[in-house]
Amino acid sequence: MSKKSLPVVDVTGPGDVGADECCSSLTSEPLGEERAVELARVFKAMGDPVRLRLLSLIASNQGGEACVCELTGVFDLSGPTISHHLKVLREAALITGERRGTWVYYRVVRERLTQVSMLLDLAPAT
Amino acid sequence: MSKKSLPVVDVTGPGDVGADECCSSLTSEPLGEERAVELARVFKAMGDPVRLRLLSLIASNQGGEACVCELTGVFDLSGPTISHHLKVLREAALITGERRGTWVYYRVVRERLTQVSMLLDLAPAT
Repeated sequence: MSKKSLPVVDVTGPGDVGADECCSSLTSEPLGEERAVELARVFKAMGDPVRLRLLSLIASNQGGEACVCELTGVFDLSGPTISHHLKVLREAALITGERRGTWVYYRVVRERLTQVSMLLDLAPAT
Repeated sequence: MSKKSLPVVDVTGPGDVGADECCSSLTSEPLGEERAVELARVFKAMGDPVRLRLLSLIASNQGGEACVCELTGVFDLSGPTISHHLKVLREAALITGERRGTWVYYRVVRERLTQVSMLLDLAPAT
């Protein structure tokens, strides 16, 4: 298969991963209703073993990027099922995808994972 | 209502929050199937706005503990519905509950939140 030189991927995060939300934790103050709805959507997207493994496969792949062609073979699932799971991860702004030639290449949205990690990063016990 | 002196709450974490699992991240290597199933259960438990707010209310309450009597009034939901959500959080080892007299008191399982936080704590971009 011929492969041409690939451009650098633009990994600008989605607009709804705001910097103002980056640093609050579950312990600092009770979550508001609106923020809870938004974050629950992210956790729900991660609440499936296949999606969690897809996220991990993408994050741990060389260069932090994975071609969909590298992901489908790992699971005993159909292409459309994998595509559906990747769509859920995209909609939760956990990954971004970019088509280049025949394939779509995925990357994790680091800001999103950091946001969630910090949310769960508790202050020392008092 | 008479209340006797209360013992210190034992917050020993459940057995399945192993120290050997504390430090791996999504970026370090692809998640195994078994671990993905276990972690997905935790994320699924957090994938609901009410449960996320309950977790935050408990974590941010003074002393890191909350009586169920303090939690039910916050939501426009029935007692049994709140109890169901608390049960899901308990089953995912995100909180522990202890009955003392009339009420059950809840605490977050810090080891569990730390485990999940570290999972999402990505290594610096290369």
